[in-house]
Amino acid sequence: MKIGILGTGDVGKTLSAALVRRGHDVMVGTRDVRRKMEEKADEGSVSFHDWLSKNKKVRLGIFAEAAAHGELLMNAVAGHASLEVLAKVRPADLKGKVLIDIANALGPWGEGTIELFVANTDSLAERIQRAHPGLRVVKALNTVTAHIMVNPAGLAGADHDVFVAGNDPDSRERVTRFLRDEFGWKTVIDLGDLTAARGLEMLIMVWLKLWSAFGTADFNYKIVR
Amino acid sequence: MKIGILGTGDVGKTLSAALVRRGHDVMVGTRDVRRKMEEKADEGSVSFHDWLSKNKKVRLGIFAEAAAHGELLMNAVAGHASLEVLAKVRPADLKGKVLIDIANALGPWGEGTIELFVANTDSLAERIQRAHPGLRVVKALNTVTAHIMVNPAGLAGADHDVFVAGNDPDSRERVTRFLRDEFGWKTVIDLGDLTAARGLEMLIMVWLKLWSAFGTADFNYKIVR
Repeated sequence: MKIGILGTGDVGKTLSAALVRRGHDVMVGTRDVRRKMEEKADEGSVSFHDWLSKNKKVRLGIFAEAAAHGELLMNAVAGHASLEVLAKVRPADLKGKVLIDIANALGPWGEGTIELFVANTDSLAERIQRAHPGLRVVKALNTVTAHIMVNPAGLAGADHDVFVAGNDPDSRERVTRFLRDEFGWKTVIDLGDLTAARGLEMLIMVWLKLWSAFGTADFNYKIVR
Repeated sequence: MKIGILGTGDVGKTLSAALVRRGHDVMVGTRDVRRKMEEKADEGSVSFHDWLSKNKKVRLGIFAEAAAHGELLMNAVAGHASLEVLAKVRPADLKGKVLIDIANALGPWGEGTIELFVANTDSLAERIQRAHPGLRVVKALNTVTAHIMVNPAGLAGADHDVFVAGNDPDSRERVTRFLRDEFGWKTVIDLGDLTAARGLEMLIMVWLKLWSAFGTADFNYKIVR
């Protein structure tokens, strides 16, 4: 399948590496290809250039190219930049496509106290859906750290859950199958229409406290029934 | 132990019944004792009068009396009424006491769409703490339905979690022991200071969607590590 992933951070890299290994034709989108390829590595990390040389099958383009490429789209851009990035894409390249929205509604790191820029009565996913009515937005995977997204079995034998929410039942079902087939998720809980993205995005606030309490991001929610 | 429970709804009744069975001296507080005793039963339910006749060891008083009675206090009043109810209590009857705050920041049922009246940058628990600096507020149990609060073993052998948050570490530790010893909670996760109540209270939004998806409130979160 042709997949377009917006964003070259940890989430974008982890998803694209896993999906090319599964045989998919993946293009990741960034703001400026040349700048991204010349970017220096963060401390303790590798540069995007070096990462790409080890993941040669991943293609790199600007955001609009990655969106045009994908039959399925994934939003792995930081929450505060997501709407601006999607505005760069031609509406015809979004129309009718499923977008898995993984972003959380957090501002840039390190700027003031941690708070959501939208919560409670609205959500980032709903804002994206309203801005792009032709898109089929499905909120998913925003509740778990990147390497667990693509390898749930690496934590407790995949005995933990992810969620989908979106206005189109067929798209929720399609994303559910995608998460099961590509990454091995055992339990994908369907929470219904996109208003459920409010609760899913608000989970980041308890997630951050759990992260702080445990000293690791290697955990996930399981809904015990 | 003398325990004062504010609120005579499902949570207040379930907690007080369980705690008198454990040998505690429990007073539940209500707005108007006579009105409460004359209240008709909701459809499919029993009246408070009939409930009390089956739980004779539970004492009933006005809110101020229940608060004066308890060495340990529990807020089981609806979120939208909690601050007003606590304002009826003499400050001397709160001073130095631990209050387990179980309320969620929801408005009265059935009035418009479901939304929190405080979220993200503040929480009900923090509002209570600011209004009553002498109180030691510990947010706990607001993430689970009433009968599971007092009987976690009734769901999956208690293999699921609750959380505590509060500004005083000793009080968090005391509530943790209380939840283990009185109700049998196996895992009580300490999330640190009361800013964690924001995330814990926001959990109700995903809880309500899970409730709707499952058609039952008999579920709880487990943090898989």
